[in-house]
Amino acid sequence: MIDFDYSIPTKVLFGAGKLDGLKREPLFGKLALVVVSADGSQSERDSLNRVLDALKHQNIEYMIFDKVRPNPSKACVMEAAQFARDNFCDFVVGVGGGSVIDAAKAIALMTRNPGDLWDYIVTGSGKGRPVKNQALPIVAVMTTSGTGTEVDPWFDITDESVREKIGFGVPSTFPRLSIVDPELMRDIPPFLTAIQGFDAFFHAAEGFIAKIATPISEAYSLQTIRLISKNLPKAVRDGTDMEARTNIALAGLLSGMVQATSSCTSEHSMEHAMTAYHPELPHGAGLLMISDAYFSFFAKYVPDRLIKMAHMMGETTDGLSDGEKPMTFVRALQKLKRECGVDGLKMSDYGIKSDEMEQLARNAHKMMSNLFAMDRYTLSLKENVDIFMAAYR
Amino acid sequence: MIDFDYSIPTKVLFGAGKLDGLKREPLFGKLALVVVSADGSQSERDSLNRVLDALKHQNIEYMIFDKVRPNPSKACVMEAAQFARDNFCDFVVGVGGGSVIDAAKAIALMTRNPGDLWDYIVTGSGKGRPVKNQALPIVAVMTTSGTGTEVDPWFDITDESVREKIGFGVPSTFPRLSIVDPELMRDIPPFLTAIQGFDAFFHAAEGFIAKIATPISEAYSLQTIRLISKNLPKAVRDGTDMEARTNIALAGLLSGMVQATSSCTSEHSMEHAMTAYHPELPHGAGLLMISDAYFSFFAKYVPDRLIKMAHMMGETTDGLSDGEKPMTFVRALQKLKRECGVDGLKMSDYGIKSDEMEQLARNAHKMMSNLFAMDRYTLSLKENVDIFMAAYR
Repeated sequence: MIDFDYSIPTKVLFGAGKLDGLKREPLFGKLALVVVSADGSQSERDSLNRVLDALKHQNIEYMIFDKVRPNPSKACVMEAAQFARDNFCDFVVGVGGGSVIDAAKAIALMTRNPGDLWDYIVTGSGKGRPVKNQALPIVAVMTTSGTGTEVDPWFDITDESVREKIGFGVPSTFPRLSIVDPELMRDIPPFLTAIQGFDAFFHAAEGFIAKIATPISEAYSLQTIRLISKNLPKAVRDGTDMEARTNIALAGLLSGMVQATSSCTSEHSMEHAMTAYHPELPHGAGLLMISDAYFSFFAKYVPDRLIKMAHMMGETTDGLSDGEKPMTFVRALQKLKRECGVDGLKMSDYGIKSDEMEQLARNAHKMMSNLFAMDRYTLSLKENVDIFMAAYR
Repeated sequence: MIDFDYSIPTKVLFGAGKLDGLKREPLFGKLALVVVSADGSQSERDSLNRVLDALKHQNIEYMIFDKVRPNPSKACVMEAAQFARDNFCDFVVGVGGGSVIDAAKAIALMTRNPGDLWDYIVTGSGKGRPVKNQALPIVAVMTTSGTGTEVDPWFDITDESVREKIGFGVPSTFPRLSIVDPELMRDIPPFLTAIQGFDAFFHAAEGFIAKIATPISEAYSLQTIRLISKNLPKAVRDGTDMEARTNIALAGLLSGMVQATSSCTSEHSMEHAMTAYHPELPHGAGLLMISDAYFSFFAKYVPDRLIKMAHMMGETTDGLSDGEKPMTFVRALQKLKRECGVDGLKMSDYGIKSDEMEQLARNAHKMMSNLFAMDRYTLSLKENVDIFMAAYR
């Protein structure tokens, strides 16, 4: 029987031009810590300036922390939290993509809590202590789409000293306010558009096959998959196609709502291991590399769910044998990759060696064991290695 | 281009047995005002006792206000708000159906704000003053399903002295926590099950044809319509069929999410006028009486939307002319009414006279003009009278 808890407390302003809404929305105090990337694009700097103008318009003072890098590190989070605490910041505004918003969430949490972030992390070498205090309020101004971090409580932080990239979150790390303005995403180059779009796709697909999926999360998943299949090739071909961009941004938002109401599965654990050892590998690219092998393996365990996703991608399974039907999803996925020009991504291109597969599988099981528990079939370490091997090129 | 604000801050515990979760959820203070119906069923009294036990378990004290009647009155709200203020209540817990929860919301608002509720109401004879203070936190324990009030900010209150039943709400009248436990709905008799289910159906259908519908609200609408078409006849036939009950409760929840993200249309304005003059008429019954005429009128203005809803009800429109296709929805609606035994409801059975139609139309336009602005075609007063006349039996 259907049974779930549902909570997405974030207010979202969605649409082209919606960044202007920041001038009018009630915010959360008089002094903001504004978190941005260490090496943002011109477009990101323009967005930052508009955010600062909006804060001035609201008579809110701000301090800027501009040291966040891709796959943000624990050291960066702890430095910024100290800075925010020393300056008595009231709330945190992240302006950027997934890395920046994830860092902003972790900073907001650690500003209000003692000790080290890993004191609270529940997997890997984390100590799993209970979080004492609510995070500072978080505002997310998105300059990319795909991670879903705008409407979920999760953040991924890497402790490079122990090679752990771990996802964590508490109810207070849901952003209070998120602005998803596709105009800010106009200049994202084709390759990034593609891998970020696929990140959203896999959040939706994993959330759909996860055992805690609910009728609500399923509706979000199927809508995400439909929107991405129809629009991602267009957005990759022409990033200024604002209708396609808007639909991809909407899909990214919906994929975040999947994450807030269902869960990723072991595919994400596996990719986190890859990024933990190879921080230069973009997360979406890692997912793309293992996805064919991953979903092919699961075809026999969740056939009906793969068939439904294939139908949402516009495929028919009429006339196929029951055994063949679920593989229609894998073929549709391969076709979508080709249309987006990301079918040729190889682990070896990022320096991953074929003899690392066991190490990666062990790391995935150790660091992100929680997501293995979301699968409808529990992968053994050997099966996990086999999937990595099948994916290796 | 797609553009919307999204906010549903309510946490929902959904599923059979979930009322027990109230023992564990963080609540909002040390003294609760518990709001219940003046004439609750045995089942509602049982639910109330379980709620009181949960509050005791959490060491929370409570006072009970048990004077709420169907179509709750402003006088009742103002009396309870005074009571809550005099006793320094920290939050409000409503235990009941739509009337009780709506009253609880209005009470929570007026406990924290000076003057009269109608000082803040924006239509009818309301003064439209800005609401100064946030409502007390609201917990909703649902014993019926259909109004959607568990996940929207809206409440309907009637001022009988001026014959005004008006819907109102502010962001702080979203419940903070809602419990939707289908076990509590097991004893709802067939007729009430039917008209409450249709209330949810019309929220979804109106929200789907409203001009502020978004891709997210549309997903909620279509899922609601599908669930109700499939399950309402079963739940009406056998109220203890927990699978059907659960699906209807889920549809009710989703229809509330439609209301939080889209809007009702003029059909609801029209029904409110009927109830304002005939308070003994159940809201869902009023909607059922006018729905065929209403959607038949709109068939030529929103044909594609009616066709999509017909498809979600399992109908096909293949082989029909373009003019006939949207009427498939009206026929499917008539069939669903028959299957639920509510196809014979007549205005005359509730004492409504055929010469009242103009008065009702004028009341609808005056009291709930805001919902006429949500239609994709703006009804004239004459057209509104014509729809009432076509619906009259």
